[in-house]
Amino acid sequence: MDVIFNEGGVTAPKGFLAAGVHCGIKKHKKDLAVIYSEVLATAAGVFTTNKVKAAPVRITMENLSDGKAQAIVVNSGNANACTGERGLKDARKMAELVAQKLGLNPHDVVVASTGVIGVSMPMDKVRQGIEQCCKSISVYGGADAATAIMTTDTFKKEMAVKLEIGGKTVTIGGMTKGSGMIHPNMATMLCFITTDANIEAKALKKALKDATAKSFNMISVDGDTSTNDMAVVLANGLAENQLITCGTEDYELFYKGFETVCIELAKMMARDGEGATKFIEVQVKNAPDEISAVKAARAVTRSNLVKTAIFGEDANWGRIICAVGYSGIDFNPDLVDIYISSRAGEMILAENGMGLNFSEDKAKAILSEKDIKVIVDLKQGDGCATAWGCDLSYDYVKINGSYRT
Amino acid sequence: MDVIFNEGGVTAPKGFLAAGVHCGIKKHKKDLAVIYSEVLATAAGVFTTNKVKAAPVRITMENLSDGKAQAIVVNSGNANACTGERGLKDARKMAELVAQKLGLNPHDVVVASTGVIGVSMPMDKVRQGIEQCCKSISVYGGADAATAIMTTDTFKKEMAVKLEIGGKTVTIGGMTKGSGMIHPNMATMLCFITTDANIEAKALKKALKDATAKSFNMISVDGDTSTNDMAVVLANGLAENQLITCGTEDYELFYKGFETVCIELAKMMARDGEGATKFIEVQVKNAPDEISAVKAARAVTRSNLVKTAIFGEDANWGRIICAVGYSGIDFNPDLVDIYISSRAGEMILAENGMGLNFSEDKAKAILSEKDIKVIVDLKQGDGCATAWGCDLSYDYVKINGSYRT
Repeated sequence: MDVIFNEGGVTAPKGFLAAGVHCGIKKHKKDLAVIYSEVLATAAGVFTTNKVKAAPVRITMENLSDGKAQAIVVNSGNANACTGERGLKDARKMAELVAQKLGLNPHDVVVASTGVIGVSMPMDKVRQGIEQCCKSISVYGGADAATAIMTTDTFKKEMAVKLEIGGKTVTIGGMTKGSGMIHPNMATMLCFITTDANIEAKALKKALKDATAKSFNMISVDGDTSTNDMAVVLANGLAENQLITCGTEDYELFYKGFETVCIELAKMMARDGEGATKFIEVQVKNAPDEISAVKAARAVTRSNLVKTAIFGEDANWGRIICAVGYSGIDFNPDLVDIYISSRAGEMILAENGMGLNFSEDKAKAILSEKDIKVIVDLKQGDGCATAWGCDLSYDYVKINGSYRT
Repeated sequence: MDVIFNEGGVTAPKGFLAAGVHCGIKKHKKDLAVIYSEVLATAAGVFTTNKVKAAPVRITMENLSDGKAQAIVVNSGNANACTGERGLKDARKMAELVAQKLGLNPHDVVVASTGVIGVSMPMDKVRQGIEQCCKSISVYGGADAATAIMTTDTFKKEMAVKLEIGGKTVTIGGMTKGSGMIHPNMATMLCFITTDANIEAKALKKALKDATAKSFNMISVDGDTSTNDMAVVLANGLAENQLITCGTEDYELFYKGFETVCIELAKMMARDGEGATKFIEVQVKNAPDEISAVKAARAVTRSNLVKTAIFGEDANWGRIICAVGYSGIDFNPDLVDIYISSRAGEMILAENGMGLNFSEDKAKAILSEKDIKVIVDLKQGDGCATAWGCDLSYDYVKINGSYRT
């Protein structure tokens, strides 16, 4: 059974409503969203590995410990990070306000924030925004919610897929924001996925963990891991399929659709990286093992030298092999082949660790496209991995180097 | 006894001669240097940890295995990396040519290169250059040699210190090149240190290893570890001091001078990082241990977000604590104090993990200076470390993103 792409985002699955409003945390743009499931949902989350965890991250980790949630409240414009006891109190208050308005237990509300670090939340505005959202949530509110979490993102990021599981149609929808900043104090990834699948908590947790490793953890914009990163999934069971458990065929079906949503959302984030002019996919093939492939692919997407070379449309394979070389993996440099490809064609730049006398014109034509693929063949085993990133442009410096814009 | 700064570089110690010439690897600028000791010297080297090691790195590792060397040949404009068997043959040939002209054993010649990756060495030009250098080596050639290894460096980097050991004057000189590129294919650190100290091989090796950890390994321009990095020291004993061995007071004296040379040269590299407009020193204090302090300091100097913030003269302590948070160390974010300082003054930005209501004007004044110090006090132990870096400017993108300039 194939995964079918669907219109919409978090409100595409049955029983999910959402809204996004402007409440004044940001000057003009939408800055607060609520997502709501008509019934209590099975829920799972993955969180930043940064030792500095924002207050909403800490509260959400607490609230998801029972594997259940029914609503999500998320704001942009303020990260509620490095805000001490007051920050924790504010994050808890956000959950309480939503719970009150929607008749829920505060422990079933997920709280997330993105924006400036070290400034306390303007709770009056937040309270108003939550009231407004809870009044206006609807099945049509997904796009507004996706818009309300944008920061320097240039487009809203949402998607949905449909698939058949045990004769029932299961829908999975998601929204995310890119590694952008609203104030120059933050880089945050936030991702919220909804599904009407009936799935046990353990299986949902496993799906989120595995798909995160293949998607969100494989993108890099600037190598900085935020204090507020969070990916959360709510599964409300309204598709009425037989309960999905680990290790079954149904799980594999669900996972395929779920991973597709995560990968497509992750790719949107990389494509919309701050100042990006090009989207870069790096495939590492035939590594000694998968972990090595992952390390190598991530080192290439993180390298400032590779990123600036691709911005300059320079077929600079020396920087690519150099990044693989310092990635910490074991490999034989004298076996490495490096290819580039895009809509304009594919070509090999280096073979067995040495440069080929390739056509600079053809390379330039390939690299002048917006979507660039780099393939590194280590010819040493069967480990493979794909990572995504973007180039490093003047605009990245401009966006992050402009004082308090 | 104090370390006294001295004029000159690699030819400041007794018995060292040098020359730097233009032989045509680069279009117009000096591109080949030879350093020579009148007597066989005790020698040690540290090399790139990149799995992709350039041919000269591999030959020099071989040649230094007996702990002896008498000459160094180094070119800029071509890295002789990813050049296969031909590259190894060319690097060996460079040692042979120098040995022939100066009447040495080829195994006593150190070979180093920096420049474009993946292009074979123009050996006719190199041969001419070596002949020219070997003819013209003199005690006045240190500055020319330091000039000949420059790439995108904006100033030549050399220095020397004098100190008294056992009644004898010992001189230590050094030269280095920054993490610049001549072609957009390379980032290399090369450092050559000479001394007339009489020191046993084991002690010299230890001094180089320990000082490298405190100096070259504590700078970051773009986080990319080159295929050609190399720091080599030659000690020819002509100061006639009593042999320095490990664990003695004389060793401590020597080490102090040696570390000073390494740190000052490393700071010159950071100061002259590609596109840099500001020099950044990051001190991490009171970390649980020294390793944690090193990791945290390096994470802050490597962070693109911290680097762009300092370019923008933005007192963005959120990005600093965020980088410490993902550095992989164990610490309590709620204890962290962060300060900035420069010639214009010092101020605290955050205390106990939370932002203070500081004067933006004063912060701006401090950050508008060229030399910026960031102090991160973890208040958890007695580990401390200092790292150096530079800001990330439009010019970094320009230098590395311009196609084949």
